[in-house]
Amino acid sequence: MTSNPHRLSDAEIQHFIDTKTKPLGALGRIESLAAQLARFCNTLTPRIETCELVIFAADHGIALEGVSAFPQAVTQQMVQNFLAGGAAANVFAHSQGVPVHVVDAGVAGEPIDAPDLWSHRIAPGTQSSLNGPAMTAQDRDRALAAGAEIVARTSARALAFGEMGIGNTASASLLAHKLTGLALDDLVGRGTGVDDAGLARKRAILAQAAARTDTRLPADTALSEYAGFEMVMMAGAMQAAAEDGRIVLVDGFIATACAAAALARAPHIRPALVFCHRSQEAGHRVLLDWLEADPLLDMDMRLGEGTGALLAWPLVKAASAMLCDMASFDSAGVSQG
Amino acid sequence: MTSNPHRLSDAEIQHFIDTKTKPLGALGRIESLAAQLARFCNTLTPRIETCELVIFAADHGIALEGVSAFPQAVTQQMVQNFLAGGAAANVFAHSQGVPVHVVDAGVAGEPIDAPDLWSHRIAPGTQSSLNGPAMTAQDRDRALAAGAEIVARTSARALAFGEMGIGNTASASLLAHKLTGLALDDLVGRGTGVDDAGLARKRAILAQAAARTDTRLPADTALSEYAGFEMVMMAGAMQAAAEDGRIVLVDGFIATACAAAALARAPHIRPALVFCHRSQEAGHRVLLDWLEADPLLDMDMRLGEGTGALLAWPLVKAASAMLCDMASFDSAGVSQG
Repeated sequence: MTSNPHRLSDAEIQHFIDTKTKPLGALGRIESLAAQLARFCNTLTPRIETCELVIFAADHGIALEGVSAFPQAVTQQMVQNFLAGGAAANVFAHSQGVPVHVVDAGVAGEPIDAPDLWSHRIAPGTQSSLNGPAMTAQDRDRALAAGAEIVARTSARALAFGEMGIGNTASASLLAHKLTGLALDDLVGRGTGVDDAGLARKRAILAQAAARTDTRLPADTALSEYAGFEMVMMAGAMQAAAEDGRIVLVDGFIATACAAAALARAPHIRPALVFCHRSQEAGHRVLLDWLEADPLLDMDMRLGEGTGALLAWPLVKAASAMLCDMASFDSAGVSQG
Repeated sequence: MTSNPHRLSDAEIQHFIDTKTKPLGALGRIESLAAQLARFCNTLTPRIETCELVIFAADHGIALEGVSAFPQAVTQQMVQNFLAGGAAANVFAHSQGVPVHVVDAGVAGEPIDAPDLWSHRIAPGTQSSLNGPAMTAQDRDRALAAGAEIVARTSARALAFGEMGIGNTASASLLAHKLTGLALDDLVGRGTGVDDAGLARKRAILAQAAARTDTRLPADTALSEYAGFEMVMMAGAMQAAAEDGRIVLVDGFIATACAAAALARAPHIRPALVFCHRSQEAGHRVLLDWLEADPLLDMDMRLGEGTGALLAWPLVKAASAMLCDMASFDSAGVSQG
């Protein structure tokens, strides 16, 4: 990577892209993604060839109010599935040579005994945010710090962050609502698949939980009042990764709510964030619009785990390869139009 | 790969997908892509892990009528660029470990002397289709056969086909128009980037070329009257690949026009075709709609060379990995909702 003593201007970056052997603008969104990478890395040739996926798992007190289609035990079962390599995120990651790390940020029940698990348990699940804060300010700060520690254990140039936690679309809706002031109902969806009655129940419970605090909250307050441990840890990891010069691949609705929290805490990290896909989960679209983010993929997915981020990773690699390896009209001896 | 003596039903495939550890339908378009792979390969576990890119290059007589923003010499120069590994298609392919083969299907000028080039030259460019057929029926049949020979030289489970040929959006517009009966003007775009005056001129020339034959033509007649050698060869290769059980990754406007020709000749190959991206080239959208094809990516690209197909390749790999490697609720011991 060529290091530049001065700050590259957008015009310098665009000129460099325009010398490549292709009609002007013909690579569309790959070109704008490449420009983002060059700007963030402050080099015309940012070599972004490695990625790791970190999946944060934790349980949510609000799940016990009946906001999910799945029982809470599934969080722990899915952690075992991640460790065994059998989940969607594993097989997507494996098909692209991306290593996967699994973090216990606070799964309910006894601690999981597995050598490959990264244990950063804050507590066995949060409290329900229906009648009080999900966690203490101290636990929130421990989770934020754990996110930074986890980033320090990775070395890839790009980090994809995924999550698992039964009930976490509910927590993400509340977090996004308190951060943005967007209407709560517009941010509430079916999650893993509640039916119409379940959705009505989820809306009513979340409205009650939202009503006990101010309409909008500062990021740290919103996190401790409504988020899950995996979400706070992800927000901390996103900020730490960006500040360490890594590209952050933002997954679906829950990860985007975490990104919104990280951005509220540290607006300067925005250039590091690549919004990867638009989830089918109701709420993701309005949250992305509020963030003025236009994600790369629209695959009608709504799974989380980092699956959407993984599918966008090859696009980031391609944008980097365009900058680093593609010939110019001059170097290739190709006539310009 | 498990071979099935009977023909898998859609219900069997959907049931298998629904047993995977994820909420019903949560992988969206990856699930429908997986279903297509399973159906085409007639197995629940189609292992699709290898891809090769074949780029067909040729010149077009109609380019000499002034329908392109670039001079004809660029076709040959870009072939050299492909051979040197410097084009967008090369760097995208390299970033994914996809081998690239370059075919001279009929580039203008002297034959290119390069050991890595696959030479299947029909002639040094087609005739202009303005006043007569682009090629003879004999040359068309030679090009179709060459496409099949080229497929036989490859071994990957999926094949991406790209093209290079100054003037070939013009030829693709005419081909698509004669195959589908769609309005010619809706199929004509700026190609590599003609300005408004250039676009008006391109439309007028193509209208004149179209007027000399019937409104719609049989596939083979449309190919010899209006296509380029690289396009006929690609159509032949698509058909041969599909009939050999390979997945065919369909790139942008020109490749889709070739696919339309291949489908007109051999409608049974449809299940093999994965439509990869929606190009910015005017005409691609209407042609895709006519084919009832909804491509995976929308990256605002308009380059060709197979670049869009390459960016969709990881999605195909992911769909295959979902079928082959992802755990079921039973095997992972995960509770269902």
